[in-house]
Parts: sequence; C-alpha cells; structure tokens
Amino acid sequence: MIITIGREFGSGGREVGKRLAEYLGVPCYDKEIINEVAKLQGISAEYVEKISDSDVRVFYQSTVGHSFSAPMMQQNGAIDVLIQEQKVIKNLAKQGDCVIVGRCADIILKDMNPLNIFVYANQECKIKRCLERMREDENEKSIIKQMKKIDKIRARNRNALTGSKFGERESYHLLINTSNIDIKSIIPSIASFALEWFKMQNNIATK
Amino acid sequence: MIITIGREFGSGGREVGKRLAEYLGVPCYDKEIINEVAKLQGISAEYVEKISDSDVRVFYQSTVGHSFSAPMMQQNGAIDVLIQEQKVIKNLAKQGDCVIVGRCADIILKDMNPLNIFVYANQECKIKRCLERMREDENEKSIIKQMKKIDKIRARNRNALTGSKFGERESYHLLINTSNIDIKSIIPSIASFALEWFKMQNNIATK
Repeated sequence: MIITIGREFGSGGREVGKRLAEYLGVPCYDKEIINEVAKLQGISAEYVEKISDSDVRVFYQSTVGHSFSAPMMQQNGAIDVLIQEQKVIKNLAKQGDCVIVGRCADIILKDMNPLNIFVYANQECKIKRCLERMREDENEKSIIKQMKKIDKIRARNRNALTGSKFGERESYHLLINTSNIDIKSIIPSIASFALEWFKMQNNIATK
Repeated sequence: MIITIGREFGSGGREVGKRLAEYLGVPCYDKEIINEVAKLQGISAEYVEKISDSDVRVFYQSTVGHSFSAPMMQQNGAIDVLIQEQKVIKNLAKQGDCVIVGRCADIILKDMNPLNIFVYANQECKIKRCLERMREDENEKSIIKQMKKIDKIRARNRNALTGSKFGERESYHLLINTSNIDIKSIIPSIASFALEWFKMQNNIATK
C-alpha cells in the first residue's frame, strides 16, 4: 500500500500526506527523504533540498539509462544527488506501506502500482494557507512569487522526467481540491477510498 | 446539497451519479432532464437528446443575455430546447438535494454552490465498460469512434458555454479515475467526502 501525493505549492498536500499516513498507521516520507540522501551522500540537507527543488532534473532525464555526458557531470554532483534520491525512495517503499509526498514518487515507484493522489486549490486559498505559516522575512508578494516559481519548477521537472504534465488527471487516481476545506475532516474519506482502491487492485492481481 | 457529475464517455460517471444519489437518499437527474424538456416543449425526448448532445451549444453561448440573431433562430428550435434545459435543471435543483449528471450543471447551478465531481478513466477501461453494455449494431471500432465524438462535443460545448476546459481540475472539487475500479465499492467514500464538504461550506456561509 504505497500512496504518493503530488501537490501544488500551498495546497496543503503535505498536510494531506501526514494526516493520511497517521490515520492509516503508516509512515509518511517527505523531508525524511532529503535527510537520508544527505546522510548517504555526506552533504547537508539544505544542499540536497536545493538540488531536489531546482531545475537540474531537466538535465537528469537524458541520463536515465545512458552514460553521463560532460556538461551534466558539471552540475556540482546534482546527478548523484538525484540518483541517490530515487534509490532512497525505492528503498523506503520496499520497507512497506507508506505515504510519500512529492519528488515524482508516482513515476519512480510506477512498478509498485501506487495510489497516486494530486492535491490542488485555488490561488486565493493557497495564498491564505501560506500566509498562516509565513516566516518573518516573507510577505504576500514574496509568497505569490515563490508559489509561481516552485510550481513552475515542479511542472518542468515532472515533464522532463516523465513527459507527463504536472497535475494532469491521467497521471493520478484521485485529485482533491482543498479550497475552503479543513483537511483534517476529509482524511477519513480519502483513507476509505484508498483502502477500497488497494483491495480492488489486489483482486485484479490475484485473478 | 447539489452534486454535479461531469464525466468522460464510458467512464461510468452515470453509474457514479445514480449510486451516489441512492446512497445519499436523494434523486438523481439524468435522462429525467431530457424527458421533462421534451414534455414542456411538446417534442420527442429523442430530438431533445439529439440537440442536447450536438454542437448547437456553441451557437447558444453568444445568446446568453442577448437577443437572438437570425442564424441561431434557424437551428430548428435548438435554442429553445437549450434554454428550456437550463430552466428545468434550475427548477429541479431548487426542489432540494440531488445529483445531476452532465449537461454543464456545475456551470448552470454555479450560484447554488454545488459540489462538482469529474469522473474519468483510461481508454482501455472505458472501452471495456462500453463493450459490456454494447448494443447489437455496435462493435469496438464504432464505440471508439462514438467515444471520441461525444467527448469532443462535450468539450466543445463546455468551452463555448463557460470558457473552461472539459475535465480541467480547476472546475471541480474532486476528480475520480475509475480505471480498474468497481464503482459500487467507492460510493461510501465519495458520499463521506461530499457530506464533509457540504458541512464545511455551510460553516463558511454561516460565519
């Protein structure tokens, strides 16, 4: 029972992941992936996060299954970090039932037949959600700018890795609009959908 | 509690609507709309259905709030049928809680703040579903052709009426992929999501 959560920045996707995992009694992997990669590579979590959220995946795609070309190797070890990230995600998933937030886990774990959920919301609600957890050096304007930037990178990375579009319904089993929604209250229905979904996939697999 | 169901042809959207309505103990309106329009206009249900599923909505859009122009009036009463359809949908929704399948009801009933669900599936599963209920004069090839045609018309009509794209997540609150799914078994989770959703919207409205 592997559940992946794709999400728009500010939609509460991380909260959906954490609460869903808690409700189902399974681990949720999010920042844990970054920390594990950092440990294995002997570099800082901040640096891993920076690479993981940057545009370097675009370079990575053409390396899957190929030998690396010189310009890619110049990405300050970025490729190593991304390969390590994929390994970490696969290893975590192999350990048992879990929820994984972001990092194109739906694609990386495709062979394990995960349930793929996408979480999104309207702009107004995403801004509101971000403002509630805003750091001192942030303001509404900087948040909108960051929101656009991060979703753009996520979309570009996803497209580069998979050819599929970010948030396109074909890639997911369930898309949830969290606008004007208290996430906690919808977790039981998502969990119930997930449990039924896995039951049906198991039935197909054993037929 | 008004729930609208948009759907791809063959995805089982109608079944989702019927079963969800039954589960919630509210009426489901689908063919009933066609029949009511036919009765009010004094024409056959077949003709209403033909108009409702044809490209004429494209002409209709520019008439909303405007006087009709000559070419539109030549659509063999098509405009009258579509105006009547909108009236029927609004009247049905005013009578109380219900589920409405198709017919851009999410847009027509926008002011009533409905929960909008979109149901879709992969091509293989949609074909399989259609083959199960195939008429004698149909075959796989004719079904694929019909599937493409109807979804194209639905998309074009929706876009003409609303400017929004068919199946685009922004228009909906929940999108459900019914590929390899026994619809009956996911109805309780959809119903539970719907009930929580309406509770939250009521909370916002009474604040």
